[in-house]
Amino acid sequence: MANAAGSTKATIEFYFDFISPFGFCASLRVDDLARKYGRTAAWSSMLVGVSVMKVMNLPPIRDLPLKGPYQKRELARYVRKHGISLGHDVQTEPAYPIPAGRAFHWLNHHQPELAKPAAKAILNAYWIDGRDIGNSEVVAELCTSVGAERQTVLQAIQGEEGSALLRAAVDRSLAKGVFGSPFFIIDGEPFFGLDKMELIEEWLATGGW
Amino acid sequence: MANAAGSTKATIEFYFDFISPFGFCASLRVDDLARKYGRTAAWSSMLVGVSVMKVMNLPPIRDLPLKGPYQKRELARYVRKHGISLGHDVQTEPAYPIPAGRAFHWLNHHQPELAKPAAKAILNAYWIDGRDIGNSEVVAELCTSVGAERQTVLQAIQGEEGSALLRAAVDRSLAKGVFGSPFFIIDGEPFFGLDKMELIEEWLATGGW
Repeated sequence: MANAAGSTKATIEFYFDFISPFGFCASLRVDDLARKYGRTAAWSSMLVGVSVMKVMNLPPIRDLPLKGPYQKRELARYVRKHGISLGHDVQTEPAYPIPAGRAFHWLNHHQPELAKPAAKAILNAYWIDGRDIGNSEVVAELCTSVGAERQTVLQAIQGEEGSALLRAAVDRSLAKGVFGSPFFIIDGEPFFGLDKMELIEEWLATGGW
Repeated sequence: MANAAGSTKATIEFYFDFISPFGFCASLRVDDLARKYGRTAAWSSMLVGVSVMKVMNLPPIRDLPLKGPYQKRELARYVRKHGISLGHDVQTEPAYPIPAGRAFHWLNHHQPELAKPAAKAILNAYWIDGRDIGNSEVVAELCTSVGAERQTVLQAIQGEEGSALLRAAVDRSLAKGVFGSPFFIIDGEPFFGLDKMELIEEWLATGGW
């Protein structure tokens, strides 16, 4: 599992939820950032619906007064600055994240070289092209586009093993204290939020403090 | 009210809660940052207990699993980097923030030139010296040290006017969408969190985007 989070000391563990816009924005930068400092980014999807709603017992941020509207504005400011054209309206109900999570973690376990390309294809399909990644057929098609087998992916989404692998990955992320998207663990240090990417760069450049 | 938030276009509105460690850390940098770009920082205290607990109906972050422990670690990393020695244990129950808030907003209304010095004295006394700013006598003494009259400050804390001024200020902050500490409004743009100070600098340096 060369791609699994935490596999080497130099690894940047990158946690994201497929349905988190801030996680998507981080996904566009994290590999370049890691490479610049001789590191590798190990991607792992998590579920904000579990960490925020079940473990912390909080409502989704987008439903909150004050913070909900603020986050939409912050996202708009970020994508404006970085020239990203979102094809997905963050005001709408997010997609069902389970098919993407199961497919990702099944691939990460059995065909790790395909996991990150599949994650990128799924994230881009959802956030740029506005496709419904809650649909298993869509996820299977996207995984197929990076070299996975369609029937294998559908089985990963619908079968017990994919479900167990996703649950185990989410449990591992919670055990490491991961509660939001994006979340990074570098040299044992946790960094939460897209805002942290400049601080992370400083950490990588200086060796930390 | 030269010191009141929002008084001029070039003003950086800086919102903080006296009992927020991240707000304290921001208070140490915001004036220098504003000055560097020909701006002025207008300080205004708010109450996270109102915005978070009453308006958003959320528990205090420090009581949350995952996010509570994370925030303590993030704060420790920040103060380590910036060479700040906190004299206050963030694990303990925070001080009662009302005396400081009333004194600040009474001064901001009647003797605005004293409001910011008083806020700095109170913040430093709490976060560096570990004093109990929930005690009116302590707040009065601290305000006296920057030129206010002791009896006037005690009256501001205990009387109806100081109470009304604080309530009005908190209501204004909520109307502007302020929900946490620190919070900045610059050129009409809201920025939440200590993490935003580098982004704010970029905004000020470039004129925004």
